[in-house]
Amino acid sequence: MTLPLAFDILQSGVRLSLICAVIGLVCAFLLIIIVLRSPAGNERMRQISGAVQEGAKAYLNRQVMTISVIAVVIFILLIFFRGAPTAFGFLLGAFCSLAAGYIGMRVAVVTNTRVTQAATQACTRALRVAFTGGAVTGLLVVGLALLAVGTFYHFARNMVGPDRAVSSLVGLALGASLISVFARLGGGIYTKAADVGADLVGKIEAGLEEDDPRNPATIADNVGDNVGDCAGMAADVFETYAVSLIGAILVGVLTVANAPAAIVYPFVLGGISVLGAICGILFVNFAGGKPASVLMGAVGMSALISAILFWPATHQLFPNGVEIAGKLRSPTDLYYASLVGLVMTGVVVVITNYYTSMRYRPVQKIARASETGHATNIIAGLAIGQHATALPVGFIGIAILLSYSFAGLYGIAIAVMSMLSMAGIIISLDAFGPITDNAGGIAVMSNLGKEVRAATDELDAVGNTMKAVTKGYAIASAGLAALVLFGSYVEELKAHITSNGQPFNFQFSLTEPKVIIGLFIGGLLPFIFTAFSMDAVGKAAGAVVREVRRQLQAHPGILKGEEMPEYGTCVDIVTRAALREMIVPALLPLAFVILVAVIPQLGPVVLGGVLVVTIVTGLFVAIAMTSSGGAWDNAKKFIEEGNYGGKGSPAHAAAVTGDTVGDPYKDTAGPAINPMIKVVNIVAILIIPIFF
Amino acid sequence: MTLPLAFDILQSGVRLSLICAVIGLVCAFLLIIIVLRSPAGNERMRQISGAVQEGAKAYLNRQVMTISVIAVVIFILLIFFRGAPTAFGFLLGAFCSLAAGYIGMRVAVVTNTRVTQAATQACTRALRVAFTGGAVTGLLVVGLALLAVGTFYHFARNMVGPDRAVSSLVGLALGASLISVFARLGGGIYTKAADVGADLVGKIEAGLEEDDPRNPATIADNVGDNVGDCAGMAADVFETYAVSLIGAILVGVLTVANAPAAIVYPFVLGGISVLGAICGILFVNFAGGKPASVLMGAVGMSALISAILFWPATHQLFPNGVEIAGKLRSPTDLYYASLVGLVMTGVVVVITNYYTSMRYRPVQKIARASETGHATNIIAGLAIGQHATALPVGFIGIAILLSYSFAGLYGIAIAVMSMLSMAGIIISLDAFGPITDNAGGIAVMSNLGKEVRAATDELDAVGNTMKAVTKGYAIASAGLAALVLFGSYVEELKAHITSNGQPFNFQFSLTEPKVIIGLFIGGLLPFIFTAFSMDAVGKAAGAVVREVRRQLQAHPGILKGEEMPEYGTCVDIVTRAALREMIVPALLPLAFVILVAVIPQLGPVVLGGVLVVTIVTGLFVAIAMTSSGGAWDNAKKFIEEGNYGGKGSPAHAAAVTGDTVGDPYKDTAGPAINPMIKVVNIVAILIIPIFF
Repeated sequence: MTLPLAFDILQSGVRLSLICAVIGLVCAFLLIIIVLRSPAGNERMRQISGAVQEGAKAYLNRQVMTISVIAVVIFILLIFFRGAPTAFGFLLGAFCSLAAGYIGMRVAVVTNTRVTQAATQACTRALRVAFTGGAVTGLLVVGLALLAVGTFYHFARNMVGPDRAVSSLVGLALGASLISVFARLGGGIYTKAADVGADLVGKIEAGLEEDDPRNPATIADNVGDNVGDCAGMAADVFETYAVSLIGAILVGVLTVANAPAAIVYPFVLGGISVLGAICGILFVNFAGGKPASVLMGAVGMSALISAILFWPATHQLFPNGVEIAGKLRSPTDLYYASLVGLVMTGVVVVITNYYTSMRYRPVQKIARASETGHATNIIAGLAIGQHATALPVGFIGIAILLSYSFAGLYGIAIAVMSMLSMAGIIISLDAFGPITDNAGGIAVMSNLGKEVRAATDELDAVGNTMKAVTKGYAIASAGLAALVLFGSYVEELKAHITSNGQPFNFQFSLTEPKVIIGLFIGGLLPFIFTAFSMDAVGKAAGAVVREVRRQLQAHPGILKGEEMPEYGTCVDIVTRAALREMIVPALLPLAFVILVAVIPQLGPVVLGGVLVVTIVTGLFVAIAMTSSGGAWDNAKKFIEEGNYGGKGSPAHAAAVTGDTVGDPYKDTAGPAINPMIKVVNIVAILIIPIFF
Repeated sequence: MTLPLAFDILQSGVRLSLICAVIGLVCAFLLIIIVLRSPAGNERMRQISGAVQEGAKAYLNRQVMTISVIAVVIFILLIFFRGAPTAFGFLLGAFCSLAAGYIGMRVAVVTNTRVTQAATQACTRALRVAFTGGAVTGLLVVGLALLAVGTFYHFARNMVGPDRAVSSLVGLALGASLISVFARLGGGIYTKAADVGADLVGKIEAGLEEDDPRNPATIADNVGDNVGDCAGMAADVFETYAVSLIGAILVGVLTVANAPAAIVYPFVLGGISVLGAICGILFVNFAGGKPASVLMGAVGMSALISAILFWPATHQLFPNGVEIAGKLRSPTDLYYASLVGLVMTGVVVVITNYYTSMRYRPVQKIARASETGHATNIIAGLAIGQHATALPVGFIGIAILLSYSFAGLYGIAIAVMSMLSMAGIIISLDAFGPITDNAGGIAVMSNLGKEVRAATDELDAVGNTMKAVTKGYAIASAGLAALVLFGSYVEELKAHITSNGQPFNFQFSLTEPKVIIGLFIGGLLPFIFTAFSMDAVGKAAGAVVREVRRQLQAHPGILKGEEMPEYGTCVDIVTRAALREMIVPALLPLAFVILVAVIPQLGPVVLGGVLVVTIVTGLFVAIAMTSSGGAWDNAKKFIEEGNYGGKGSPAHAAAVTGDTVGDPYKDTAGPAINPMIKVVNIVAILIIPIFF
C-alpha cells in the first residue's frame, strides 16, 4: 500500500480529479457572474426578492447558530473519544455541508427575480437563467465534495498516516450527514409550515390566490422554497456525495487487496463527471425545444460523456485488473460496475417521472378519485405512493446483484459513486425548481402581465417534476450508499475485534433472535422519525395559522389591499418554530444507535440488524412519501388545467387536501430519511471502538 | 419419541385438551340456544334482520364457491408434490377456517335484532345478549382449532407415522391461512366498499343519516359488518390459533430433545384457556357496571385462571425439565415463557386502547387537528398511526428476548401459543362489535325510540374500541406466530438439505448480498399488498357509488320515502366486486414466494430474507394502519359528542374524511396483513422439498 509506484498512482489520480473539481468550482463562479449580469427587473420585483433574500439569510444564519452548538458538543466528544483528525474531519464535513446549502440558496434568491424579468421576454430565456442559477448549486456540491474529501485525505495521510487518515474520513462523513439531517428537517419544516399555514388561512379561509401579496405568510412561503428545496437539498446531496466517496474509499481499503488504485478510482469517477455535468449545462444554454426535454437531454448528455470517459480511466487505473474477495476482477468488470450506477440514475429518473408527472396514469387516477371527494383522493394518493416503491426497489435489488457480481462489496460502492457522480447535473435540475417557483411568486406579487405568469407557470410545472425526480434519485442513491456503510460497519467491527486479539464470532444471521430484535428496532426508526417530523410541521404550521388569522382580524385593511401585512412576523415565527421543532427528530437516530450500543442486552449484533432494516424500511417509507406527495401535487395541477371541473370545483377542493397532506410527506419527512439512514450507519461505525 | 411412556403422556395430554375443546363447543351450542330463546323483536325488525341475513348468506356462499376453485387446484398440486396427508390437512384447515367464519357470522346475524329488542328494556340486558352472540364465535374458534389440529394429528400419526404427521400439519396450516387471506380480503373489501359507497352518496351527497332506510346501500353496509368484521375476523384468528399451535408442535419436534411433552404442551395451554374463557363469559353474564369495564374484567379473569392453571400443568408435563438447544430448562422456565404470552395480551390491549379510545390524547389530537381542515386531520391521523407502532413493537422485542432466554425458539413458540390461547375471550369481544353495530342499524331502520338508539350507540362505541383492541392483539400475535414459522423454515431447510446427504452451508447473514436482496423484496410485499387491497376497495366502492346514484336518480320517490330502494342490487354488486377484487392481492404473496424460489439467482437464502422482513415490515404497516383507522373513527365520534363544533361543523366534515380514509386502512388492508405474513412463511416451508 505504501509502494512508491502505488503512491504515484494515488497522487496523480487524486490530483487530476481535484483539478476537475476546481474547474467545476470556477465554472460555478462564472455562472454566478452570468446570473448577476442579467437584468433584475423593476423596483417592486427587486423589493420582493429582497424581502425573500433577507428572510432566507436570517433563517440560515440562525440555523447555523443552532446547529453550531450541537456541532461543538459533538466535536469535543470526538476529540475525546476518537482523536483530533476525526474531530477536524467532522468540522470540515459540517462546514462544507452548510456552505453548499448556504451559497446555493444565496444564488437562488438572487436568480429568482432575474428569471421573472427574463420571462417578460421569452420562456426559453427564462429557462436558461433559472437553470444557470440552479447549475451553480450543482457544480458547487460536487466540486466542494471532491475537493474537501480529497484535500482532507491528502493532509491527514501526510500527518497521521494512511490508516488513521481513512478512519478520520468517517468523521467528515458524520459532519456532512448530521448537518444534512438538520438542514433537511429544519428547511423542510420551515417550507411546509409556511406553505400549509399560508394555504390554510390564505387560500381556504380568505379565498386568496397562491402568492397573493395580501397574505401575511406569502413571503415566508417563498423563503421556505429556498431554505427547504434549495439549501436543504444541496446539503443533502453534498452529504450523500461525500459519504459515497468516503464509503467507496473505506470499502476499497477494507476489501480490495491492491488498495491504492481502489482508493483513487472513486475520485476519478467523480472528477470525470464534473466535466460531463459542465457539458450538460452548456447543452441547456444552446439547445432549443420544450423545457422538460431540454433538461432531460442535458442529463442524457452528461451520462453519455461520463460513460465514455470511464472506460479509458478504468483501464488506466487497473491495467491488470485487481483482486477482490479472493477473485481477480478485470478492468471491464469494474467498468461495468460503474455503468450500473449510471443506468440506475436513468432508471430512477424515468420511474419517478412516471409516478409523479401529470402525463401518466398514476397522477390522473388521483385526479379522477378527487371527483368523489377528499377521502378517495387521499386513499388513491396513499396507494399510488406504495405502488411506486415496487419498481425502484426492484431495480435497486438488480443493481446490487449485478455490481456485487462484478466486484463484490467494492462493486456496489463503485456503482453508488458513479450514480452520485451524476449529482452535478441532477442538482442543477432540482435547484431550478425553487427558483422558478419564486419567479412565479414575484410575477404575481409585482402584478406583471398574465403572459409572464403563464411562462413562469410552465417552468414551475417542469420544476415540480424535476424536484420529484431528484428526490427519487436522492433516496435511491442514499439507500445504496447506506448499504455500503453497513458493509463498512461489519468490516470495521471485525477489524476492531481482531485487533484486540479476540476471535470475531459475531453472527448477523437472521436465525439469531438478537438480529430479529435489531430488525424490529431498525424498522421502527423510519416510522417514528417521520411521525415526529410530521408532528413538527403540524405544530409549526399551527403557529403560522394563528399569526395570519391575528393579522387579518386586527387589520381588516390588509384583505382590502389598503394596508401592507407584516410579512416579517410570519417569517420570524416560522424561523423560530422550525429551529425548535427540528431538534427532537434530528437527534432521534443518534439516540437510537447509542442506546442500542450501550444497553448490554443489545450490543453490536442487534445494532447490525438495526442498521440494515433502517435502510430497507427507510427506503420504502421515503419513496412512498415522496411519490405520493409529488403525485398529489400534480393531480391538483392536472385539475387546475381544466380537468374534472377545474379550479374551484369540488374535485379541486379535494385535490388541494391531497396536496396539503403531500406537503410534509414529500418535502419534510420523506427526504429527511436520506441523511437519517446514513447518520445511523456512520454513528455506528464511529462508536465501535468506544462501546464494543 | 416412540417410547411407550412418552406415548402415554402424549395421548392423555392431548386427550384432556380435546375434552376441553369439546366442552367449549358444547358451551357455544348452549349459547346459541340462549340467544335464539331471547325475543327477536317486531316484524319490521325481523324483516330487516332477515334481509341482512340473506345478503350475508348469499355472499358467503359465493365466496365459498370462488375459494373452492382455488382450493381444489392447490389440493391437487399438494397431492402431487407433497402427498395425500398434507393435501388432506390443507382441506381440513380450509374447511374449518371457512366454517368458523360461517357459523360465527350466522349467529351474529340472528343475534343483532335480539340485541335491539333487549335494548328496548335495558342496556345491561342488550350487552349480555350481544356478548353471548359474540362468545359463540369465540368458543367456536378455539374449540374448532384445538379439535381439528388434535384429531388430524392423532389420525395422521397412526396412519403415516409421527414424522410425516407433523409435516402434514403444515398443510393444515396452509389451508387455514390461505382461506383466511381470502376471507379477510373479500370480507374487508365487501364491508368497506359498501360502507364508503353508502357514505359517499348517501351521507355526503343526499344528506342522509347513517343507516337511513332510504339509502339503497344500507343493507349492503350492514351485511358488510358481518362478513368483514365477523366472518373475516373469525377465520383470521382461527388461522392464527391453528398456525400457532402447529408452529409450536413443529418447533417442539425440531428443537426439543425430549419431544413428546413438548408436543403436548401447546395443546394443554389451549385446553386450559378454553376453561378460562368460559369463566370470563360467565363473568359478563353476572357482573354489573359499565360495559367497557365488564368486558375488560372478563379478559382479566380469563387470563388469571389460565395463569393459575398453567402452573400445575407445566410441572406435571415436565417434572424434570427438558433439554432445549443443549441446555436444561426447568418447568418454571417454561411456565415463565407461557406467562410472557399472557402478559403480552394485556400489554397490547392496553396500548391499542390508548391509541384508539377517545378518552386519551391521540384521538383528541386528531379531533383538534380537524378544526383546521381535512388535510390536517389526515396528517395527524397518519402520524398517530406511525407513533402507535413504537410501543407494541418494543414489547414484542422484549417478549422475544425474554421467552427466548427461557426456552430458546420453543420458548417463543410457547409464548405465542399462550397469547393465542386467550383468543376465546378476545374474539368474543370482537364479534360483539358488528352485532351491536347492526343492532343500532336495525333500531334506526325500524324507527324505534331515541332511547333505544342511545343504548345501542353506547354499546356500539364500546364495540368500536373492542374491535380496535382485537386488531392489535391479532396483528401482534400474528407477527410472533410468523416468526416461529420462519424458525421452522430454517430448521426444515436444514433437515431437508442434510437428509440428502449434503452439508448445510446456507448463510442467512446480513452481510450476504442475497439476504439484502431478500430484505428488499420482503419489505416490498406489505407495501404492495396493502396498495392493491386499497385499490380493490376503491374500485368496488366506485361500483356502489354508481348504483346508488342511479337508483336515486331513476326513482326520486326513494328520497321522499315513498318508494323502497332496491337493496338487493347493491348487495349483489358489492358481492361480485368483492369476490373479483380479492383474487389479485390474495394470490400476490403466493406468487412472490414461488417466484423467489424458482428464479435461480434468488433461491433459499433470498427467500429467508424475504420471510423475515415481510413479518417485520408487515407488523409495522398493519399496526400503523389499524391504529390510524381506529383513531380516525373515534375522533369523528369524539366530535359528534359535541366537541369542536359537533355534528355538521367543518371539523366534523374533516373528521368524516379521516374516518373514510381509515375504513380500508383498518378493516381491509391492515388486518389482511395478519394471514398474509403467515401464508408466505407456510408456503416457503411447503415448497422446500419441491424447489430446493
